[in-house]
Amino acid sequence: MYPENPLSKFVNDLASRAPAPGGGGAAALAGALGAALTSMVCNLTIGNKKYAPYEEEVKAILTAAQDKLTQLQAGIDEDVQAFNPVSAAYGMPKGTEEEKKARSAAIQEALKKAAGVPLEVAKLALDVLELNLRLFPISNVNVVSDIGVGVLMAEAALEGAALNVEVNLSSIKDEAFNEKMRQQLDPLRARGRAIQEQLLEMVEKRIKGQ
Amino acid sequence: MYPENPLSKFVNDLASRAPAPGGGGAAALAGALGAALTSMVCNLTIGNKKYAPYEEEVKAILTAAQDKLTQLQAGIDEDVQAFNPVSAAYGMPKGTEEEKKARSAAIQEALKKAAGVPLEVAKLALDVLELNLRLFPISNVNVVSDIGVGVLMAEAALEGAALNVEVNLSSIKDEAFNEKMRQQLDPLRARGRAIQEQLLEMVEKRIKGQ
Repeated sequence: MYPENPLSKFVNDLASRAPAPGGGGAAALAGALGAALTSMVCNLTIGNKKYAPYEEEVKAILTAAQDKLTQLQAGIDEDVQAFNPVSAAYGMPKGTEEEKKARSAAIQEALKKAAGVPLEVAKLALDVLELNLRLFPISNVNVVSDIGVGVLMAEAALEGAALNVEVNLSSIKDEAFNEKMRQQLDPLRARGRAIQEQLLEMVEKRIKGQ
Repeated sequence: MYPENPLSKFVNDLASRAPAPGGGGAAALAGALGAALTSMVCNLTIGNKKYAPYEEEVKAILTAAQDKLTQLQAGIDEDVQAFNPVSAAYGMPKGTEEEKKARSAAIQEALKKAAGVPLEVAKLALDVLELNLRLFPISNVNVVSDIGVGVLMAEAALEGAALNVEVNLSSIKDEAFNEKMRQQLDPLRARGRAIQEQLLEMVEKRIKGQ
């Protein structure tokens, strides 16, 4: 829905009182921008004689980046769709004890499902960062700033998605579920930060001609 | 042009071989997403009884955030437009010594103008971060993750724009010009990093209920 509509519609809906789209959708879009810049750098490396020895590897990175782009762009709408059942559950009646119990169970169930969407965005964003780690040494030096911006977008997507997972977990009472989610999320964040630090240092050095 | 077209068009053009849009446009869009999330948080705070004492201040922040959003969204197209004269200058004839001189002068002139666009995006992104610093203590706690994602988007925009300024300066031979640009850019980056660190720490604490 959002990808086919004007860019300004997503931005304006994001800015509005409507709770969805929110930070989760913005994170997915940032991830898509990161994957798009990775693709651009591949496209501007492929066919350049200077990088001919690496052409097969760059083509493989391009295919992977385009796949991540597709999934992350779809993540914008998935985040909105995941919010609806949460909102519906909160709207359930809470007059009797039985109604209160049913409502609470429905909220917990919806929150668990909703938390899975940003976790998937975080995984995809880390995949984009890993692709840039492979791409940097064999990429066209003329588009070094585009690699750098792609890394910034992917890392902001990862951390933004992580905040959305965390905020869901803070309302989920099933501690075993939360523990399992954090065991998946925390290593993604640690790895993402390490890759960003390493790549941005290399980008700055290349810009300065070192 | 881009804001009125489908979101997927910007993403696909970004991913393509075309050198524009590139990282500069992606940074401007990330800044617009940051400003939009700031607006959303304001909109979901205004009218809530719990935050009534701060309503005038939140309304002022909303007005400012919407102004930044408009300018950052316009920055997407401005970045593309700034690239055209650079590209045209590189395409000038270089057969004779005179042509070489004219081409080189035109390139330098176009690069100087082009460097001003991401510098402006960096300034606007820092303004968005400053707005979030004012907003955080008086904002609806239910949208804490949206403040966090807004901060991540604005800071990625600032750093991404900074890389675009830097890459332009690396081709500009007028050292006095470069020095002046860096004197503007470096404090923006330092301040942006400090605000992001401070706000993300507060966001994480609030999510954990501390």
